Amino acid sequence: MTAVDAPVTAVPAISGTTRLYALLGDPITQVRAPGLLNPVLARRGTDAVLVPVHVTAADLEAVVRGLRQMANLDGLLVTVPHKAAVLALADRVTDRARLAGSANALRREPDGTWTADTFDGDGFVRGLVEAGHDPRGRRVCVVGAGGAGSAIAVALLDAGTAALRLVDTDPGRLDTLHRRLSPVYPGRVSTSARPILDDVDLAVNATPLGLRPGDPLPFPVTGLPTHTVVADIIMTPAETALLRAAYLRGLPTQPGLPMLGHQIDAYLEFFGL
Amino acid sequence: MTAVDAPVTAVPAISGTTRLYALLGDPITQVRAPGLLNPVLARRGTDAVLVPVHVTAADLEAVVRGLRQMANLDGLLVTVPHKAAVLALADRVTDRARLAGSANALRREPDGTWTADTFDGDGFVRGLVEAGHDPRGRRVCVVGAGGAGSAIAVALLDAGTAALRLVDTDPGRLDTLHRRLSPVYPGRVSTSARPILDDVDLAVNATPLGLRPGDPLPFPVTGLPTHTVVADIIMTPAETALLRAAYLRGLPTQPGLPMLGHQIDAYLEFFGL
Repeated sequence: MTAVDAPVTAVPAISGTTRLYALLGDPITQVRAPGLLNPVLARRGTDAVLVPVHVTAADLEAVVRGLRQMANLDGLLVTVPHKAAVLALADRVTDRARLAGSANALRREPDGTWTADTFDGDGFVRGLVEAGHDPRGRRVCVVGAGGAGSAIAVALLDAGTAALRLVDTDPGRLDTLHRRLSPVYPGRVSTSARPILDDVDLAVNATPLGLRPGDPLPFPVTGLPTHTVVADIIMTPAETALLRAAYLRGLPTQPGLPMLGHQIDAYLEFFGL
Repeated sequence: MTAVDAPVTAVPAISGTTRLYALLGDPITQVRAPGLLNPVLARRGTDAVLVPVHVTAADLEAVVRGLRQMANLDGLLVTVPHKAAVLALADRVTDRARLAGSANALRREPDGTWTADTFDGDGFVRGLVEAGHDPRGRRVCVVGAGGAGSAIAVALLDAGTAALRLVDTDPGRLDTLHRRLSPVYPGRVSTSARPILDDVDLAVNATPLGLRPGDPLPFPVTGLPTHTVVADIIMTPAETALLRAAYLRGLPTQPGLPMLGHQIDAYLEFFGL
């Protein structure tokens, strides 16, 4: 169970003593973190609030500079399309965020500097583990080497995945990520332009395929071993065509939503809330 | 009755669609507007929230520049010590804010520019009128020609005060304000280094005297006509030594707190909420 799953009893009352957190994105109306995190803070009696901030890529630097000067603002969450750009706006970037090439959380340190970290992959792995699919020692194929796929790849490797195959149709993107990861996780990372899935324990969709009704499957489920877990990072719809196909074949599945709930827990730890 | 006086039933739930308002000050922990305004917004079903932002004078410009670039932020409230400095950060300043030399609210216009206005005096006058002390056609003495006194003086003159006497121990400050006001309200504004109160219908304390227990009275109540209303802008304590002395002499009094409740109403109108 994540902090989000506990019953909601209150939303925060804001006063002059309330500490601020801002979630940056463009667009912003679809974000779910404020609606999930604020009731958790209220339930814990934490005098803090997360507000959505709509900022374009062109204005990101000026907005972050302004936010950093707010003395009662302690942290930032970051979503599309700013996850890569914020790396340059932090004073310190964790190894995994640098490896993933993106960050989705920044916090103010006691000395006033700012540290960037990523929890996209962390939330995904926490969700897997809770569902009984610990990736330690497993063989995994991650399809999609963009921002989300990169973060998930790093988190899987940090969690002990024995062999990780990265798949992307863009050879340049695949090569860049492989060159970042292979020195840190020697002998554990391979790449492929097309999904090779007949030897994996876990197959992950980290592409946007499945968001829209007519999308093709990101990979076929027909060739998968019968024990292979099929995971999707897409949250809407909750059951994608990929998950449906895996379910119909009798394969274990892992939907996208638990990733977000577990990310909220990771944020709380990161911010010391 | 102001919007604030209605019973509180909810505080706002923040989601990705929530519009933002920020209250700027230094210090910030004492501010009361978020605690007053947010329950009003929630009760009305308005998807907007006011958050406190702690910003020093040195950082004000960078913070306001950042706030202006937030596409889902529609307005700012401003408190000590930024009320004068924000005038330079707006694209347009209302006549009364320019006359008062300070603003406490800025809003984003449909064309993306920002307008600054002041409601310190407006809230004060609304409170007076509701209490049955309409200043129209009256003779008034305002003691204290700082930010609050200036704003109150302008609002009283706009509300039809026939003769306004400004009192301050700082001749330079008094002279500056007099030179701003007298061309706009010809023949209605006079100044004095010391309180002259024997001919007034309303005497206003706009100095900080009364905030601390040992403070001397801002002016004596002994020479006041028996019908004269004594008003204080200090909110804490609710009953200042001045109001107590006036009450003991049998004079009608006007405390500071109603000014804030009425200001909330004025903010709601200004922001179109």
